Amino acid sequence: MSFTLPPFKVVDTAASLVNPYVHRTPVVTSTALNAKAETSIFFKCENFQKMGAFKMRGAIHAILQLSEAEKQAGVVTHSSGNFAQALSLAARNLGVPAYIVMPENAPTVKKEAVKGYGGIITICKSTLAAREEAAVKIQDETGATFVHPSNDLNVILGQGTAAVELLQDHPNLDVILTPIGGGGLIAGTALAAHYLGKNCTTIGSEPITADDAYRSLKSGTIQTNDEVNTIADGLRTQLGDQNFPIIKQLVSEIIRVEESEIIEATRLIWERMKIIVEPSSAVPYAALLAKKGRFRDKKVGIIISGGNVDLQNLPF
Amino acid sequence: MSFTLPPFKVVDTAASLVNPYVHRTPVVTSTALNAKAETSIFFKCENFQKMGAFKMRGAIHAILQLSEAEKQAGVVTHSSGNFAQALSLAARNLGVPAYIVMPENAPTVKKEAVKGYGGIITICKSTLAAREEAAVKIQDETGATFVHPSNDLNVILGQGTAAVELLQDHPNLDVILTPIGGGGLIAGTALAAHYLGKNCTTIGSEPITADDAYRSLKSGTIQTNDEVNTIADGLRTQLGDQNFPIIKQLVSEIIRVEESEIIEATRLIWERMKIIVEPSSAVPYAALLAKKGRFRDKKVGIIISGGNVDLQNLPF
Repeated sequence: MSFTLPPFKVVDTAASLVNPYVHRTPVVTSTALNAKAETSIFFKCENFQKMGAFKMRGAIHAILQLSEAEKQAGVVTHSSGNFAQALSLAARNLGVPAYIVMPENAPTVKKEAVKGYGGIITICKSTLAAREEAAVKIQDETGATFVHPSNDLNVILGQGTAAVELLQDHPNLDVILTPIGGGGLIAGTALAAHYLGKNCTTIGSEPITADDAYRSLKSGTIQTNDEVNTIADGLRTQLGDQNFPIIKQLVSEIIRVEESEIIEATRLIWERMKIIVEPSSAVPYAALLAKKGRFRDKKVGIIISGGNVDLQNLPF
Repeated sequence: MSFTLPPFKVVDTAASLVNPYVHRTPVVTSTALNAKAETSIFFKCENFQKMGAFKMRGAIHAILQLSEAEKQAGVVTHSSGNFAQALSLAARNLGVPAYIVMPENAPTVKKEAVKGYGGIITICKSTLAAREEAAVKIQDETGATFVHPSNDLNVILGQGTAAVELLQDHPNLDVILTPIGGGGLIAGTALAAHYLGKNCTTIGSEPITADDAYRSLKSGTIQTNDEVNTIADGLRTQLGDQNFPIIKQLVSEIIRVEESEIIEATRLIWERMKIIVEPSSAVPYAALLAKKGRFRDKKVGIIISGGNVDLQNLPF
C-alpha cells in the first residue's frame, strides 16, 4: 500500500497557525551534559510551553482546523495525561468548549488541572472501552468533534511545530531525537526535519519495557505492548495508523533504554541544567548516553517534551 | 560614624570585568506566578549560572583584583556551601590555586563538587574557630589570599553584577528583591539599583527563624542569630561590617517569611516555572505572596540566587 507524506505546505502552515497561541520556547545547551554524552546537544524546552508540554501545539492546531459551527459544538477527548490539559487550555484560548473523559482512578491533581483550564470532565471506568463509550456518548449529545491525543494528522502537524522552531534557530542539526509514546511528536518532528532540515535525520527513543514502536518499525506493522511498566509514564501509549506510516518512512532508528538509564538521565538534567523535566523527556538523552560517542562531531537536537511531574514530595 | 558608598565607577567596572567569565543568565516571567502575587515579576535566573549560583560572580571579581604574585599564591576560604564551589571554579578558570577549608561534617556531595572544580580541600572540625584557624594556617604556609564569601567589598561588587544585567535588560524596575544570607548579594544588588535604576528600591527577604538582618536594620547595629533552623540553608549566615553599612544606607525594608511560606513558594516555582531553585531562592517570592497586592502595578525584579539542591531523592 503506498502512502504519500503530508506536503511541505501543511507543515509550514501549521507553524504559522500555531505560533500566536504558544510560547516560542528557548533552546538551551549544557556543557556538562555535552561532555557526558560526548556530543553537542540543543534542547528545545517544551517543558516551558503553556501547560508544561508540547501537547499544547497539537491541540491548538487541531481546533484551528474546525469550522465555526464545529468550534461552537466543542471538542472531546479521553486522556488522563497531558493531552487532557492541553485540549482544555487550547479550547479555552479559542473560545471552544472542551469535554474531557477521564478514568475514575485519574489522580486528583490531574483532574484539578483540567478543571483549572476550563475542561468539562466526565468520569468513567478505567477501561479503554468505557472511555471510548463515554466519548462517543458526548459526541452524540453535543456534536463535539473527537480529537485523538496522537493519532490525528492535525495533531501530528501541530506537534511538529516545536521541531520547526528548533530548526529555524539551529538549521544545521544533523539529527533530532524525541521520545515515542503515541507517536504524534515523532511523526510531526520527522516531517519538520524532512522538509526543513539539511539532511537532518529523526531518531526515536523508547523505554525497553514499552518498545512497541521499536518492534513496529522492525516488523513493518503496528505492534502492541503487553505490559507497560515504565517510569516514563507519558510513553505507555501506542502508535496509530495515522502516525505509523510517517514514522516508517522518515524515522531511521529507534534506540531503547533501560529504566535505570531513564532515571539517571532525568537526574542529570535536573541537577546540571536546573530544569524540571518529566522522565519521558529524559529518554532521548538517556539514548545518547547509551550510545556514547556515536554522535561525536554531530549537532543533536532533543525535544524536551514536558515538565509535568507530581511535586507533592519535594526532595528536600 | 560616616560611611561613603563605593562609587558608581567600581560598580560599573565590576560588570565589565566579570562578564567574560560568567553566563549572562536569562530573565524569565510567569503569568501564573504574577497572578498569584498580583504583581509583575522579572526573575533573574542565577540558578542557571556556572556552578548553579550567583556566587560565581563574586568569586571571579575578587580573584581578578589580585596582583599576579597574589594569583600565583592562590586563594583560600572556609565554606561548606556554594561559595566553596564558586571559588574553586573561578580560581580554576583564572589559573589560580584555591584552598578550601571544609568542616568534617560537610556532605560528601559538596566535597565531591569542590574537588570536581579543582579545589584543594582541608578538612577541619566543624566549629568556626577551627575553620578560621585552618584558613590562617593555609595563608601562612602558602601566602594565599583569604576571600570571605560575603563580607568582602570585591565579592559584594561581583554579586551586584547580576542586578546590573537585570537592570540593563529591564531598566524600569521599581524594586528588586533578594534573599539575605551573609549580605553580599543584597549589598551588591542595592548598589546596582542605586546607581543604575530609575528610583529602583531594594528590599530584602529573610526566614523569620534567621532574621538577623531584619533586626540589624531595625536596631542599626549588627545582630546575630541564636539558632538557625530554616530550610533556606543558604541564609543561615550573618551580616558583616563590609556589607551592613551599604544595606543600612540603601535597603528600604526587609520582609520576613515563615518556613511554610518558603516551602510553598519553592513548590510554586518548581511546578509553574519548571525550574529548580534552592529554597533560599524562593524567599523573595514568598515575601511577595505574604504581602500580596502591595506591589500591584509595580515592576518587581527578583534575583533567583541558585539551584543547588540535593536531588538524591527525586520526587518520582
